[in-house]
Amino acid sequence: MHSSPSASPRQWNTRALEKARRLKQIEGWLDEGALKSERIVDALEALIAPGDRVALEGNNQKQADFLSRAFAKVDPSRVHDVHLLISSISRPEHLSLFERGIARKVDFSFAGPQSLRVAQLLEDGLLEIGAIYTYVELYARMFIDLTPQVALICAVQADRHGNLYTGPNTEDTPTIVEATAFRHGIVVAQVNEIVDELPRVDIPASWVDVVVQADQPFAVEPLFTRDPRHIGELQILMGMMTLRGIYERYGVKTLNHGIGFDTAAIELLLPTYGASLGLKGKICTNWALNPHPTLIPAIESGWVDSVHCFGSEVGMENYIAARSDVFFTGRDGSLRSNRVLCQLAGQYGVDLFIGSTLQMDADANSSTVTLGRLAGFGGAPNMGHDPRGRRHSSEAWLALMKDTGPVSRGHKLVVQTAETYKKGGEPTIVDTLDAIAVGEKSGMPIAPVMIYGDDVSHVVTEEGIAYLHAAQGQEERRAALSAVAGVTPVGMRADPAKTAELRRRGIVAFPEDLGVRRGEAKRSMLAARSIDDLVAWSGGLYEPPARFRSW
Amino acid sequence: MHSSPSASPRQWNTRALEKARRLKQIEGWLDEGALKSERIVDALEALIAPGDRVALEGNNQKQADFLSRAFAKVDPSRVHDVHLLISSISRPEHLSLFERGIARKVDFSFAGPQSLRVAQLLEDGLLEIGAIYTYVELYARMFIDLTPQVALICAVQADRHGNLYTGPNTEDTPTIVEATAFRHGIVVAQVNEIVDELPRVDIPASWVDVVVQADQPFAVEPLFTRDPRHIGELQILMGMMTLRGIYERYGVKTLNHGIGFDTAAIELLLPTYGASLGLKGKICTNWALNPHPTLIPAIESGWVDSVHCFGSEVGMENYIAARSDVFFTGRDGSLRSNRVLCQLAGQYGVDLFIGSTLQMDADANSSTVTLGRLAGFGGAPNMGHDPRGRRHSSEAWLALMKDTGPVSRGHKLVVQTAETYKKGGEPTIVDTLDAIAVGEKSGMPIAPVMIYGDDVSHVVTEEGIAYLHAAQGQEERRAALSAVAGVTPVGMRADPAKTAELRRRGIVAFPEDLGVRRGEAKRSMLAARSIDDLVAWSGGLYEPPARFRSW
Repeated sequence: MHSSPSASPRQWNTRALEKARRLKQIEGWLDEGALKSERIVDALEALIAPGDRVALEGNNQKQADFLSRAFAKVDPSRVHDVHLLISSISRPEHLSLFERGIARKVDFSFAGPQSLRVAQLLEDGLLEIGAIYTYVELYARMFIDLTPQVALICAVQADRHGNLYTGPNTEDTPTIVEATAFRHGIVVAQVNEIVDELPRVDIPASWVDVVVQADQPFAVEPLFTRDPRHIGELQILMGMMTLRGIYERYGVKTLNHGIGFDTAAIELLLPTYGASLGLKGKICTNWALNPHPTLIPAIESGWVDSVHCFGSEVGMENYIAARSDVFFTGRDGSLRSNRVLCQLAGQYGVDLFIGSTLQMDADANSSTVTLGRLAGFGGAPNMGHDPRGRRHSSEAWLALMKDTGPVSRGHKLVVQTAETYKKGGEPTIVDTLDAIAVGEKSGMPIAPVMIYGDDVSHVVTEEGIAYLHAAQGQEERRAALSAVAGVTPVGMRADPAKTAELRRRGIVAFPEDLGVRRGEAKRSMLAARSIDDLVAWSGGLYEPPARFRSW
Repeated sequence: MHSSPSASPRQWNTRALEKARRLKQIEGWLDEGALKSERIVDALEALIAPGDRVALEGNNQKQADFLSRAFAKVDPSRVHDVHLLISSISRPEHLSLFERGIARKVDFSFAGPQSLRVAQLLEDGLLEIGAIYTYVELYARMFIDLTPQVALICAVQADRHGNLYTGPNTEDTPTIVEATAFRHGIVVAQVNEIVDELPRVDIPASWVDVVVQADQPFAVEPLFTRDPRHIGELQILMGMMTLRGIYERYGVKTLNHGIGFDTAAIELLLPTYGASLGLKGKICTNWALNPHPTLIPAIESGWVDSVHCFGSEVGMENYIAARSDVFFTGRDGSLRSNRVLCQLAGQYGVDLFIGSTLQMDADANSSTVTLGRLAGFGGAPNMGHDPRGRRHSSEAWLALMKDTGPVSRGHKLVVQTAETYKKGGEPTIVDTLDAIAVGEKSGMPIAPVMIYGDDVSHVVTEEGIAYLHAAQGQEERRAALSAVAGVTPVGMRADPAKTAELRRRGIVAFPEDLGVRRGEAKRSMLAARSIDDLVAWSGGLYEPPARFRSW
């Protein structure tokens, strides 16, 4: 032995002691175990120390907004230089934390609505970025080197013991709480109400330190609702090609759909075009997907065996509860979502990811980041890549195996869809992604690419499908993509002779090669053409938020 | 609208009704809410239907063995053709299920101790393999198309309400339970005892249907204990090279160690050789790792900031509880492990994976599967690959970036260690992996490769380090590997001139290139040289199982 343990006596439970010390300070503000709502700012000043890592729950759906508003009101002379861990910077007060000097550094995943302000604060030196993540990467680091000292989270209800009921939007909460609670961090939960008995327990009281009733129910965004009225004929054409040329060809039963009108079109084509192809029961049976309203007609038509969800969707609550054979629900009847487990399922348990993009380059790299906006990532990269830790086989996965001798493996179907031109007349398929300039301007170490081209197996445009996985080498991949890139700069470089060869070899397919007639790509093909139709399909169970109602 | 929902009336809660029907049948056998232990076989006959998917908890550590023994006793005329989902086929009764016709199909991850019998049953047509997975892939599919109708799991204690305390070995239980409970499957928990108050709640009663007290505490294997007496000088030499040539060079702070004597050597070199290099605080601060006893000296010497665990390790309980600043523990003081979250952390949250292998081919593909054994996988593939869904940067990850223009990304450090020859005199680095023949013989669609060569960034042997990530093209990768492959068939093909060039370019490093003196690689370099030393380092807190005690 080189040294004796007693040579360097050390206290090994400092985190637990510090937690106890802080909690002691708020004891006087508790009322039957719960923190008095009016003392929340005082409590946060007592519970959060300068330099702490604070996980503030706020993703693309639910927001611990009572706590974020209170947090932005603490005295910066008492609480400052906080390192904020947050999925989605989406509320004004998230950035007030930096303007007021309460927080200094941030690790985040997405900043859509607030991305311009993030860029400005960065330039002004008031905000420092640790790194930009996908959701689950950020949670992963909470178990490694970014364990929070304090987590500010939200739930629907708490009981008097501190057990929490999250309702359908369970989402990220259990993961953030687990990372914090089991390393002696302090878990503060805002709840809509405190009740005697919970419908079910989503998070045990053993993991929760402070419960406080919010002034109003926590905010939830209906982010996964797409009004079928906005689905155009090109999207329907692309959907038909995808069904024939990809779903039918590979027998895709397990899948994830990114959000967007392209994938909504596919969902609404299943009970119509899909049924006419005799594909019911052969494709699209098991999903990792939020409860998209546009999936209702396929569910009602008996296409869908199961749907596991990252989060919920406003207005879908009663429909989900009435379809418990399909959705993951608790004894109480409401959805149990779980972002980390659904991401796990979407990464390792399904054969196909399909999503649409705003920009794609000639190598099929794509990004939703556009000039001047430091948006960050959602969860698409976690599903939109070939998971190299996968070891089990399926028919669809094996179909993409390259012949590389005895040590070879399959590949996930990673499909990107894009109309070649955006509505504004700008090309979607470009020589250089805006993301590169955005990354450079913001001092990011690498460009914020959403899906890397070398992970993409198929690109679908209104011109056709490029079967990139079947192309031989980089040049042929580019030729295949340009063959379906229309009159974009990338498409103009297509060589007709090469395109003809690629079509013969099945590496490029135009609609006619797939037996898809352009003339059939009409809105009448959609199983629902309005939100109203979706409500009718649901038998009145789906209750769309007011903004989506037109009747 | 194409059809009206009322046209095809359908019952949408059949799963919940069926669950209620089955649970009703065992009502008479409950005593204060818990199932009478002596009725367990009857209860399983009532709760499990022919053709059900049954998740039986059994991983490389804990085993729901009371339930597996009872399950093997059910009447095959009542319960048959079950589809078994199990992490580790490791107990004799797991295979009795197939011999007796109770189960027919199995999806599994690992079958180390029982792999010969699995192969035999397969040949006899009594067992059908769905697929072979890593742990988390199998769980992923439980949320997609392999949701269990019944889960048989284990915990340390239950209270009268059915809340569960898993103790330090939380591991896979919450994930299996979540997949089952929220799709109206039946969760049966064996517990060591039923108590009035739990030390903490790991799984809420809302998720548990049946609690039964087991006849004896559930079995747990001490799988992560390595006796330092068996660490040889070549392993110490490799450890020293790894510390200088990889950990120090890239500043690796966040990491996962596979299990084995190679990595145990590294752990025991930190407080000695590592300290002499002035690396304390600069490397190896945050770990995704089971509580390896060989990490005790590094912890006691102040190297380690945090350890998040997949599972626990027998004998480490009191040590962990007394080091709560380092480990993730609950309010009760005991470890909270979680396999899925630690795998997530190991995949997305750390910069380095290092593990040893039994065989490697010239392209650095490696496998622990050897002839005649259908072992399956553990969790290594999930950490031992480049996670292409990663979007955040770190110094170490960026250091492996290839210059591929503006759209480029870093790479995880994926390190494989291997002595060029096994103790028996057989070469480790070979032309053809045994796994290929095993895969063919067993009718597997792809060979059971543990880590794919194209994911590997570095190979360490007693000869030196091959920096594969820096090699240009496949031929140069092979040359780099053969340069450190000693006198194996692969090593014999090394061209001395090419090796010299690779050393000049830093793509191959021999010990002297790294400032490592072979003569210093002595057992005296190890911070602990026996289990007894580890106990002393722990101040008597570590209590090794009897088989590891020699005093």
